[in-house]
Amino acid sequence: MNNINPDTNQEFSAIGKRIPKLDAAQKAMGRAEYIQDIKLPGMLYGKILYSKYAHANIVKIDISKAKVLAGVHAVLTGQDVPKRMKMGFYKDNPPIKKGKVCSFRDEVAAVAATTPEIAKKALDLIEIEYEELPAIFDPEKAMEKDAPLVHEYHKSNVLKLPWKLHYGDVEQAEKTSAFVVEERFTTQWVTHCCLGTSGAIALFDAKSNLTIHTNTQIPSLAQKDFLEALKAMGLENKRVRVIKPIIGGGFGSKLDTYAYEHIAILLAHATRKPVKILFDRVEEFKATSVRQPTVIYIKQGCDKNGKLTFRDMRMVLDNGAYTSWGATTPSVMMMPITSLYRVNNVRYHAKCVYTNNTYAQAMRGYGNPQATFAIESTLDMLAEKSGIDRIEIRRINKNQPGDETPQGFKISSCGLSECIDAVQNQIAMDKNDKRQKGIGTGIASLIHVGGGARIYKSDGCGAILKMDDYGKVDIFTGGTDMGQGLDNITAQIVAEELGLFVEDIKVVHSDTDVCPWDVGAHASRSTFVAGNAALGAAKKVKETLLEYGSKLLDVPVDDLVLKDRNIFAACDPEKTMPMDKLLRKAHFSPRGKMLMADFFYDPDNENMGKEFKGNMSVTYAFGAHGVKVHVDEETGKVKVLDYVAAHDVGRAINPLLLEGQVYGGVVMGLGYALTEEVILKEGETMNANFRDYKLFTAKDAVNIKAPVVETYDEYGPFGAKGIGEPGCVPTAPAIANAIYDAVGVRITELPITPEKVLAALKEKK
Amino acid sequence: MNNINPDTNQEFSAIGKRIPKLDAAQKAMGRAEYIQDIKLPGMLYGKILYSKYAHANIVKIDISKAKVLAGVHAVLTGQDVPKRMKMGFYKDNPPIKKGKVCSFRDEVAAVAATTPEIAKKALDLIEIEYEELPAIFDPEKAMEKDAPLVHEYHKSNVLKLPWKLHYGDVEQAEKTSAFVVEERFTTQWVTHCCLGTSGAIALFDAKSNLTIHTNTQIPSLAQKDFLEALKAMGLENKRVRVIKPIIGGGFGSKLDTYAYEHIAILLAHATRKPVKILFDRVEEFKATSVRQPTVIYIKQGCDKNGKLTFRDMRMVLDNGAYTSWGATTPSVMMMPITSLYRVNNVRYHAKCVYTNNTYAQAMRGYGNPQATFAIESTLDMLAEKSGIDRIEIRRINKNQPGDETPQGFKISSCGLSECIDAVQNQIAMDKNDKRQKGIGTGIASLIHVGGGARIYKSDGCGAILKMDDYGKVDIFTGGTDMGQGLDNITAQIVAEELGLFVEDIKVVHSDTDVCPWDVGAHASRSTFVAGNAALGAAKKVKETLLEYGSKLLDVPVDDLVLKDRNIFAACDPEKTMPMDKLLRKAHFSPRGKMLMADFFYDPDNENMGKEFKGNMSVTYAFGAHGVKVHVDEETGKVKVLDYVAAHDVGRAINPLLLEGQVYGGVVMGLGYALTEEVILKEGETMNANFRDYKLFTAKDAVNIKAPVVETYDEYGPFGAKGIGEPGCVPTAPAIANAIYDAVGVRITELPITPEKVLAALKEKK
Repeated sequence: MNNINPDTNQEFSAIGKRIPKLDAAQKAMGRAEYIQDIKLPGMLYGKILYSKYAHANIVKIDISKAKVLAGVHAVLTGQDVPKRMKMGFYKDNPPIKKGKVCSFRDEVAAVAATTPEIAKKALDLIEIEYEELPAIFDPEKAMEKDAPLVHEYHKSNVLKLPWKLHYGDVEQAEKTSAFVVEERFTTQWVTHCCLGTSGAIALFDAKSNLTIHTNTQIPSLAQKDFLEALKAMGLENKRVRVIKPIIGGGFGSKLDTYAYEHIAILLAHATRKPVKILFDRVEEFKATSVRQPTVIYIKQGCDKNGKLTFRDMRMVLDNGAYTSWGATTPSVMMMPITSLYRVNNVRYHAKCVYTNNTYAQAMRGYGNPQATFAIESTLDMLAEKSGIDRIEIRRINKNQPGDETPQGFKISSCGLSECIDAVQNQIAMDKNDKRQKGIGTGIASLIHVGGGARIYKSDGCGAILKMDDYGKVDIFTGGTDMGQGLDNITAQIVAEELGLFVEDIKVVHSDTDVCPWDVGAHASRSTFVAGNAALGAAKKVKETLLEYGSKLLDVPVDDLVLKDRNIFAACDPEKTMPMDKLLRKAHFSPRGKMLMADFFYDPDNENMGKEFKGNMSVTYAFGAHGVKVHVDEETGKVKVLDYVAAHDVGRAINPLLLEGQVYGGVVMGLGYALTEEVILKEGETMNANFRDYKLFTAKDAVNIKAPVVETYDEYGPFGAKGIGEPGCVPTAPAIANAIYDAVGVRITELPITPEKVLAALKEKK
Repeated sequence: MNNINPDTNQEFSAIGKRIPKLDAAQKAMGRAEYIQDIKLPGMLYGKILYSKYAHANIVKIDISKAKVLAGVHAVLTGQDVPKRMKMGFYKDNPPIKKGKVCSFRDEVAAVAATTPEIAKKALDLIEIEYEELPAIFDPEKAMEKDAPLVHEYHKSNVLKLPWKLHYGDVEQAEKTSAFVVEERFTTQWVTHCCLGTSGAIALFDAKSNLTIHTNTQIPSLAQKDFLEALKAMGLENKRVRVIKPIIGGGFGSKLDTYAYEHIAILLAHATRKPVKILFDRVEEFKATSVRQPTVIYIKQGCDKNGKLTFRDMRMVLDNGAYTSWGATTPSVMMMPITSLYRVNNVRYHAKCVYTNNTYAQAMRGYGNPQATFAIESTLDMLAEKSGIDRIEIRRINKNQPGDETPQGFKISSCGLSECIDAVQNQIAMDKNDKRQKGIGTGIASLIHVGGGARIYKSDGCGAILKMDDYGKVDIFTGGTDMGQGLDNITAQIVAEELGLFVEDIKVVHSDTDVCPWDVGAHASRSTFVAGNAALGAAKKVKETLLEYGSKLLDVPVDDLVLKDRNIFAACDPEKTMPMDKLLRKAHFSPRGKMLMADFFYDPDNENMGKEFKGNMSVTYAFGAHGVKVHVDEETGKVKVLDYVAAHDVGRAINPLLLEGQVYGGVVMGLGYALTEEVILKEGETMNANFRDYKLFTAKDAVNIKAPVVETYDEYGPFGAKGIGEPGCVPTAPAIANAIYDAVGVRITELPITPEKVLAALKEKK
């Protein structure tokens, strides 16, 4: 795509530039303040005591010894939690449990003390008598009639959720299909491994208004949760200020509020002091939420020309003992199921099932990686069965601009075809490599929301912008930078629109007192939605700048250009004025004005209605990943030799950060495909550390290419679409397909460990 | 005045209410964070070394021992200060001096170290060789031809300032006057005695942008000063963020930037760490600025009916060794000189003179107390001479609405007459008290700016307002709360306009990154200017609220009322909706909206042009103070028995805080009149502590009544005018007049100590 701003016919000056992350130097110098660094005057330290059983009645809790320990300010148990104080999507989760515990992760008591050490010691002094209950850990078994109930009041372990759709006629389509494949896939628990562990500091002012510093991706929705918590505590009509400090990563685990935040609030209220709860790495593994395991049954078919005829999928999701956003991931799984490639007849049904395991949460891709693993694995199977080349079958069925998918998604721009080209150009997919023993290549594609995702009543984001006398801008955005670089994106968009430099723009975010509302940093929506909000505010200010400029330079508004901190006439660049001077003229004149503007952008997407139809996102991102692997047939070990992740991003606002997103996503996907797994043994986490939880690290680095396909989406800010999540979506099937290509075994269970490959090779022989 | 909002015809709900200061509980609980409480990670402590002489050449500075002291990170001298880094109105003041020192207050070196103790020790290790120079301490003597020059390059000790006006024909008027009085008055140094001592913390980010936490009254203008400092340091095009923490009082001393702030910046830059400089009480006395002493020559006359014919004044002001805003106070002195009472022929000339004393600064009233002391003292003299009752002569000459004064001030509203009534009603002024020996009463009036004061290119203030889904408001204002209660005023105005409760409004102020521009907290302008800015933003949001309400309730906009967190139809209160619900409806609908608005209010006042003519303020505040004293003729001690301070405030937004302002002002005025004086002996402060500097404290409390006259000014927010400074303006003359009334001696030199009274009594006998 060319480098010309279609609005101004000028070359882009900030958009498309590889500008390093604005806070990179601060972080590198150790100056960035994480929750770990924040210390408030008089602050106490909170600690949480967890259950010793996966499922048990609490017979007795004795906190008397803990209470009298010197330095302890408060000890809370489930008795101290107001009845209506419940967390999560289903409101089935009180921050401290009473009566019974349903998982090892269940909070049973909490302490606030003057030091973390005293708090820890106090926990050890709490005596609890349990009566163990039969527990259930397998979601499919949990659906059986006589399975122990995780929550008796719920009558069944199956959550009452509406995840069911059927478009067209799958049964009829299956009958008329030339080729049909069918398979069962399973995926594992993985966790986010944010390098910054979770933490919160809660404090009340003299009027019982709450301020909470917390590692969240959703300042505005967290504010709502905490307001409800306050209400439950009898604190009506109070104010809640949520401040998110700089965080060490957010991949979905911070999309809900957690027990530790609510406990910090309860402790702060009980002690009238600031209370900080900070997770250590073990707690981070055990008590933050996982990507939910799925059992996937899939059937797809095509006609004799390779055109997809139907897709029929059924899933069982392990919800764990409580219900956070994990239970809603089927709503996003529907997207690849109904809309990755053209397929008219689709059926899907998912059951989320309570177990006594840790509970699941959103995680990058939000269900899409699980669904795409099954879809793209079976697509290769279908290609083989039908004798059609695996690239060809993807081309035959590819999405195209102007399509409306069975679910009602309107494809405004689509570069899937170009992405497949890019993969094919950079990874030889023609099976020539098979001459080398154990070498194989694989491909898998993806669709994801790229223009917001209306999962709440509003998908909006507000921005407020002000300019000072020196040509500097402050923009307060609802959007939350969590390391992904939204502050760069915002600054680049504003700088471009106002003809300034990126260093002229200060982005203020993640403080609900200062920043307007935003639904949160999820669904790859921030560049698109927060970007459009920032652009909207900048456009309003620009209009005023041009008006003043027109008067001062005696040039028609349409002839004026803002660039490099100047305003000038396009036709006569001699007619020019530095921007700061213009601003001072506007300010220091009768009825003077400082330039300010606000803008609220709520995308024109739709809540999915009945039958889950509706254009959830204003636009969609596409991509294709190609991978070349070597499979060691003696050890079963898979080595990734080469990786190409091509994405249609609309327009790359900042190619450097975009590549960073893709690299990070692919590495996360590689872990998901090959090594990562939270191992639960009867509900208990067995590998809560970085030695036993096998994260891809720097030493496992893989050669990743990230070609960018720019389709210029008409709705995106300067044509951009969101690209936060896709990097990890099709990695697992691309690798599974490559393994099959290399050694002829199809692995259907993630992660694809050497043991599984070896077992499959053995079985094949 | 009635309690009905003329805009809505509804009773006021927030305006006029005695709502305690919003942060009172936080302060009482010790939770408010002053500069003293702020500690940043890695922070160093700076200390300043001052001159040992009033006037001397610096022959040699040896910092070698200080530099190697363990814990010392930097030692700076005048050599390390960039050449163009100069402070003050005249830019004659580098933050660390080199070459020579011109006062005991001159900074000669500074240190940053890991603890304040180490920094102090390092100062002791700095060796300086001085060569003493002849010095000059009396401003009148400093004007003599052969006086030593404070600044050789300036050629003269008299500052080149244009303080000279002449309206009408004073000489002619004098000739035709029936009665003329003439007198010389002098006033002393007093200082602000803010209970929170001064301090600043400066830090640079990785990109050399500066953040400075500092006790300032002028965040926006301080930002400008610091940007210039950065430029002088070679840091072009950087960002400066000024954050003013909660401060313990501001009475004008914080209207300029100080050496300690610039030194903190230099030290932070040198060490790349946050550097805090905090004054102790001695430094606060010695190194913050004073109200400048004046020598005043005044002549006034009246015709046989008591009508003022002319006023002729001349002043010499001790500027001290450097030039801050103190040198500009004559511009405000002009206000009472030309416009307190009707007087057509006025002449005024002021000279500001360099001496080797401490330099002067703005202080509450900004010159007005000095001028009014002379005017109101001589008015009583004139009354006596002409045989007209002292109240009567004031009534004859009183200002009235619609007047335009010789200086071009347009009196939009004026309650001076009612203020005089109030004084007369509450203090018996008819000399009956004279029957009691040593008892006397006195009166003095005042005029002051009440609707901004255009002393800079802009007199504006910006406000940004946003509403959330719960009916809560955040307003970012340029206006700075410094204890005077601007946050209440802002919250009450916004609450009133939007039908909310004051606790629904959060006022964010004093952070240049977040808050729009404002010229500063001075000139009694904040209620008026920041109040109008807040009101403007609230009106914009209200308009949108009414639009939505009209649609949702099916009621014409004009019939809708916002009150008590509800919107309803005035004619049919059944048609109602809670405000939070309305806001959620606005947000959670297609093309949803969060309500935000910005407003920049720059009053329609005028810069004084040539000859100092122009309507400096949109409106003016008036007042009259009455006092009853007892003078002990044996000791000379004056005891204040009763005090009435009546002010025309337009409308009292919050009578409780308004009374607080008046009480505080009067107590400050009493100290000025009777006890306070910074004693300088050859330039050296001799009483830099609260034992020897005689501040009126709680034990000296006087019975003060503060009747409020409400004239409803058409330009003020809900009719209000500013009233921050007036409380201390006419106190000294009211007391001097009462002393004369009591014992027949006229004291013309402040403070009116027992010694001076005794001496006068002795002389009279």
